[in-house]
Amino acid sequence: METIKQALIYDRSVHPERTNATFERVAEVLENVIGEQSATHISNLLDILGQPNPRNQLNSEQAHKITDYLDKAVLSRPQIQDIGRQLQLSEISTSEAIDIHKQFKIPVSHPEVDIIPVEGKGCWIRDTKGKWYLDMDSNYSATNLGMSNPEIALGLFNQANTLISMKEDRIQIARSRFLKEIHQMMPQGLDQFYWQNSGGEAVDKALKIAKAATESTQVIAFKGGFHGRTHGAVAVTWNVNYRKPFGLDETGWVHFAEFNDLKSVEALLKETGAKIILLEMVQGEEAGNRPATAEFVNGLWALAKQYDAVIIDDEVQAGFGRTAVKQGDWFACMSYDVVPDLMVIGKSFGGGYPVTAVVTKKEVGSKMKYGYDGSTFGGNPMAMTAALIATRQMREKDVTGNVVARAAQIKEGIATLKQKYPVIGAYSGRGLMFGFDLGSADNVRKVQDGLRENGVKVSLSSDSMIRFLPLTIITDGETRFFLKQLEKALQSLKV
Amino acid sequence: METIKQALIYDRSVHPERTNATFERVAEVLENVIGEQSATHISNLLDILGQPNPRNQLNSEQAHKITDYLDKAVLSRPQIQDIGRQLQLSEISTSEAIDIHKQFKIPVSHPEVDIIPVEGKGCWIRDTKGKWYLDMDSNYSATNLGMSNPEIALGLFNQANTLISMKEDRIQIARSRFLKEIHQMMPQGLDQFYWQNSGGEAVDKALKIAKAATESTQVIAFKGGFHGRTHGAVAVTWNVNYRKPFGLDETGWVHFAEFNDLKSVEALLKETGAKIILLEMVQGEEAGNRPATAEFVNGLWALAKQYDAVIIDDEVQAGFGRTAVKQGDWFACMSYDVVPDLMVIGKSFGGGYPVTAVVTKKEVGSKMKYGYDGSTFGGNPMAMTAALIATRQMREKDVTGNVVARAAQIKEGIATLKQKYPVIGAYSGRGLMFGFDLGSADNVRKVQDGLRENGVKVSLSSDSMIRFLPLTIITDGETRFFLKQLEKALQSLKV
Repeated sequence: METIKQALIYDRSVHPERTNATFERVAEVLENVIGEQSATHISNLLDILGQPNPRNQLNSEQAHKITDYLDKAVLSRPQIQDIGRQLQLSEISTSEAIDIHKQFKIPVSHPEVDIIPVEGKGCWIRDTKGKWYLDMDSNYSATNLGMSNPEIALGLFNQANTLISMKEDRIQIARSRFLKEIHQMMPQGLDQFYWQNSGGEAVDKALKIAKAATESTQVIAFKGGFHGRTHGAVAVTWNVNYRKPFGLDETGWVHFAEFNDLKSVEALLKETGAKIILLEMVQGEEAGNRPATAEFVNGLWALAKQYDAVIIDDEVQAGFGRTAVKQGDWFACMSYDVVPDLMVIGKSFGGGYPVTAVVTKKEVGSKMKYGYDGSTFGGNPMAMTAALIATRQMREKDVTGNVVARAAQIKEGIATLKQKYPVIGAYSGRGLMFGFDLGSADNVRKVQDGLRENGVKVSLSSDSMIRFLPLTIITDGETRFFLKQLEKALQSLKV
Repeated sequence: METIKQALIYDRSVHPERTNATFERVAEVLENVIGEQSATHISNLLDILGQPNPRNQLNSEQAHKITDYLDKAVLSRPQIQDIGRQLQLSEISTSEAIDIHKQFKIPVSHPEVDIIPVEGKGCWIRDTKGKWYLDMDSNYSATNLGMSNPEIALGLFNQANTLISMKEDRIQIARSRFLKEIHQMMPQGLDQFYWQNSGGEAVDKALKIAKAATESTQVIAFKGGFHGRTHGAVAVTWNVNYRKPFGLDETGWVHFAEFNDLKSVEALLKETGAKIILLEMVQGEEAGNRPATAEFVNGLWALAKQYDAVIIDDEVQAGFGRTAVKQGDWFACMSYDVVPDLMVIGKSFGGGYPVTAVVTKKEVGSKMKYGYDGSTFGGNPMAMTAALIATRQMREKDVTGNVVARAAQIKEGIATLKQKYPVIGAYSGRGLMFGFDLGSADNVRKVQDGLRENGVKVSLSSDSMIRFLPLTIITDGETRFFLKQLEKALQSLKV
């Protein structure tokens, strides 16, 4: 009963991040844990408390009455522990959280209300309803090591207790530590870093660095590409609906080529005189995880050389092993056996902490001059601490080796399913950045619903493509679980 | 001796953020703590260890030999403790940290090599040389509560152990908690939030939201204004050297008006038809902490009404009490008694964690449509946890009341100094965002050097203006310390 009491009235010296529980949340957790039997208890508790406002924070007296009552109710020890745990994870009810979200939210994107996660463990996520899901999204590939990590938590605790922040232009010990490690994972020759916080911001800054290096502003980006949401990153993103409302549909400096089409690139190089080419080696968001062909990549590098252009490789989603084809492929460009002039890395190397970077060849980065940019939070000691621990774990866990093995297992599993479920169309992807066609957006929605019902948290889709971005540490057993639940979800299409 | 041993060879289960110490750092710390007497000890230790590479990480055997030796050396208990502490804070020498910085750094801004901070406590910072400084910069107003905070550290530890990240479009409990608190600090009617990571990113997104709301793209910004470094934020920043290398000097959509000059604004409103006005109520970076006049602000709001334009108030540096004129002025606009249509807030409300936001009136924010933007890290549970704890502390510590009192104390102190040191020219600023003229950039440099020598960490200057951004929790005693050291520094100009 102690755990429940601690979760009802928070102790600031132990959980400064919490507030007191509401009755609405208490009722929800009782229902989560003991199901229909909770109705009587909730009704009794309401009487005992004198019908409190369900969304007011409970006070000590009320909390006391609740624990007294639950003490006498016939509950098993695991039930009591689970009630305490779930109340600890959230003292606010699901419906109140949704209401608060709607009340205060600028509606920039589709709110995802299906699952409200409160806890992660390995590749699994638990929501406010107490249900566990296998995470096949990794928070857009930002949390490839999972949603909680005791070692990162401890490192951040130590860092926040000594030096929680420090601007990018000041020399830092945490960054020195990380630099001594990270440059070993980089493609040969990419060893100049500029630290940022988000993917879009890093793309925005990569464009600035490329412009300074080439002393030109014209950029060739690709149809189907997605690079982020700042003015610079939106301008080079293909979807016109993301650009037009902000006057970024006709910038005069961005030109879109066909992906996997060298002729289209060469025509633009000739026509515009552009000296900057920006691509994702595996197009994500907008293109359903579509990889570049080896022929295209080799041709593109040859064209860049011929026309004296620099290549920016956006590996925000593809990097840190996600698209590995062989062990040691920390970045997509490594498996294609090419080195870009600039690379944008993120978001997963912070293990969940906001951190990204532009990495360049010496001759490119050195063209920036003092005063050309600046960042308060980029490369701050917390970010560098999280990154040091996360990348060390990636190497120790042989993430690239795991991705190669799991990707093969998934590809084979889906090929097997395809024989039984002909609705499965073209498979697309590389490593653990993959998807397949289901004929229609409606079919995708049905399969996503089916997966969710069967304990799998899905990723966003692109039209008729269902997409997946599992954690890069997903195990053999979890992969088999996914394929099994996928089959159950596919069965729903047969009805 | 135990503390030294623990600092030489790190224990991953206790300090996962560290590596083993180098001999170079051991030598540096001995010099920091025992001064000239360290020379013999260092020479003896080099012999004992067989002249190791000074930058290799020590192994256990070497560490053992060092502690054995120091055990026999005549050191006081405080000396031993300080050696252990300084080694714990950094196991890498200052010179190696500088070399690593230079080796891997894209030179976007002036590196600040004078002080390498490793520890903060209240308003004080300690560097790798073991020296303490009063922080009169607050990391560009990002760490107004100081560089370490046990309560934030604990909250982040708990959060990282349960749910370290979650994208902006998913409902979150940590964010719900914070929203229930933060909206009480906002100016009346500003209650729609969009969370971001950095100040520039938030300005960039505020421009997008304003564009969507007005269905227009033309923007009036101000000469002397600074708003950040993404393509969007640079475009509206006055310094042409920040814009030109990236093709952002002539965007066609940004027009610069004179600050504190209503006629200039009205002329541009007429000429360009712009519906968006962006300003800092106190111009920072580029203008030496120059406040808007009350007349200008009132006139500007009237003009915006007349021409049907929206006003974006960039409070990234000015907000969260820094420019308070009376108790309760959490934002500069509150002391001017106006409410903008959009406000950009940051960076200090995360207590050091990277978090910023755009806050708008309902009728402005609601014009954004699903798909218009999106953010992986914006409003993540770690950021919201840090923000909940930091803003609660701000209210409890009566930050706005403290700013009013300390600002008066500083203004009076500088006025007194001015009588004695006529080199002090015009005072500029509002609250704890202030500076004064020293006649020349050379004088500024000399006074900055003098302050540093006397234990005061200064902020960046603007030409002949010396600028200060102390922590908003600076005490009466610390303010007196500052004024005393300032006088010492001013004396150096007399020679």
